Amino acid sequence: MDERGLHRLIGTIIDPERLDDDCAVIPCGDRLMVASTDMLHETTDFPAGMTDWQIGWMATAVTLSDVASMGAAPGEVLLAVGLDRPERLSGIMEGARDCCTRFGAELVGGDLDAHRELTIVSTGLGLVAPEHLVRRRGARPGDVIAVTGPLGEAEAALAGYDRHRRELLEPQPRVREGQALGRAGVSAMMDISDGLVLSLHDLLAVNDCGFSVDTARLPLPAGVPEDEGRELALYGGGDFELLFTAPPDILPVPGVEARVIGEVIPERTVLADGEPLERRGYLHEWKG
Amino acid sequence: MDERGLHRLIGTIIDPERLDDDCAVIPCGDRLMVASTDMLHETTDFPAGMTDWQIGWMATAVTLSDVASMGAAPGEVLLAVGLDRPERLSGIMEGARDCCTRFGAELVGGDLDAHRELTIVSTGLGLVAPEHLVRRRGARPGDVIAVTGPLGEAEAALAGYDRHRRELLEPQPRVREGQALGRAGVSAMMDISDGLVLSLHDLLAVNDCGFSVDTARLPLPAGVPEDEGRELALYGGGDFELLFTAPPDILPVPGVEARVIGEVIPERTVLADGEPLERRGYLHEWKG
Repeated sequence: MDERGLHRLIGTIIDPERLDDDCAVIPCGDRLMVASTDMLHETTDFPAGMTDWQIGWMATAVTLSDVASMGAAPGEVLLAVGLDRPERLSGIMEGARDCCTRFGAELVGGDLDAHRELTIVSTGLGLVAPEHLVRRRGARPGDVIAVTGPLGEAEAALAGYDRHRRELLEPQPRVREGQALGRAGVSAMMDISDGLVLSLHDLLAVNDCGFSVDTARLPLPAGVPEDEGRELALYGGGDFELLFTAPPDILPVPGVEARVIGEVIPERTVLADGEPLERRGYLHEWKG
Repeated sequence: MDERGLHRLIGTIIDPERLDDDCAVIPCGDRLMVASTDMLHETTDFPAGMTDWQIGWMATAVTLSDVASMGAAPGEVLLAVGLDRPERLSGIMEGARDCCTRFGAELVGGDLDAHRELTIVSTGLGLVAPEHLVRRRGARPGDVIAVTGPLGEAEAALAGYDRHRRELLEPQPRVREGQALGRAGVSAMMDISDGLVLSLHDLLAVNDCGFSVDTARLPLPAGVPEDEGRELALYGGGDFELLFTAPPDILPVPGVEARVIGEVIPERTVLADGEPLERRGYLHEWKG
């Protein structure tokens, strides 16, 4: 069973509409609070050579990216840290704090535990006006599909293209862009952490329309041969860009660099250059 | 370095006042939101023989207890689950959902990961009117010290007193009691998950007064010889009772069973029957 199969199982226990988005949405006075929680741990999430500071930064960036993908302004971050060695704590906490500071959030607390394998769970809270909240559901035929930056860079770094190591190890969540896109009225949004194709399939699962991309328009990772770059851009995980749909007339959104890569279509399918795109990418799989 | 030593280190990175309480406190319209996150994992937190349903229940109860200890009403719970075997998920999620339902919270989302060791991080959010928020700081000489129920039961179960297995494996957070005590105006509060003595020392660390308990007044675990029971009540971890201080004239609080066990004193020390109480209990320690 893969991660999405287990998510379907969870949908029999939690209100399934709650599971459609990157964050839970909670009333908070006249605004909405969004809340996201993400688990990262050494063997699967922290590439070899990563510093403790980078680990703290990444654990925080992951949850800030989820907050951004709803159009919300980040507020507070909590960090639960399961430490294999106590001397790692200060680097991790400093990385988390610096990431919060960089993106206007505050590290307000957490939990500390001893663990055989370094394990970090970040929880991010953010606020958004109800009219600026963006969900995964909301795409309409005729909307364009766009992304906020190059795709496949993190995976390119893992494949040995060292010029992309910073994108892999010190990812920059699109916090400012997410809020600007929400205010501008984009119709659907999510972040692309599991790769573009899986993300398009995730949008497919909660919308009543389909998604057609033109691979010639994909912003590819620099310095990678084109064929390989296109593969990385389609299937590579670990990117922190936002994927969104929008009525064409609201683009460009001032201050947001975004690339149109396709359009929303009435047929419920995911296409690349007119051909159906297989649903694959960066998924945790349990064997057996 | 023990857990509290590491907490002091964190206090050089996070605003130390943020670390005084069981929850972070966040403005939310005309109310306050409290947020708590707790990591539990198989080897240290789930006693042998515990079912997956009980694991999900406990992981949720831990964070609801933190919310309750601030006087807040629980709202939403998020669960990040690092699964060693996928077939455990449904039991865990059902236990979490049932605990939420029992205490008026809603399980609204989370994250799912594969992990060598079952690891669960629960995050709880709650709301409270600013005037009913209770912190660890606030005790005043002349206040009484009280607890909401018997102490040492969880540790008694670990010591083989099977009549207390339910308290160990299916703990009942004092959600209703926490809110009633907040509305009644208790002066300081926390939950006792690390044992009474450590909790009193935690109160000592953030208050300008001291805490004197009378061991003859401790509510002991039933069915345990008195000497052993007193030891368990003082030092045993895993209880989910609330420890609070209050002006004597507001007790009893209607609907809340509580036992007065001592009084707040001007001297900054923790005493039992007039003798200083060593700061020990259930702490994660890193050797070496």
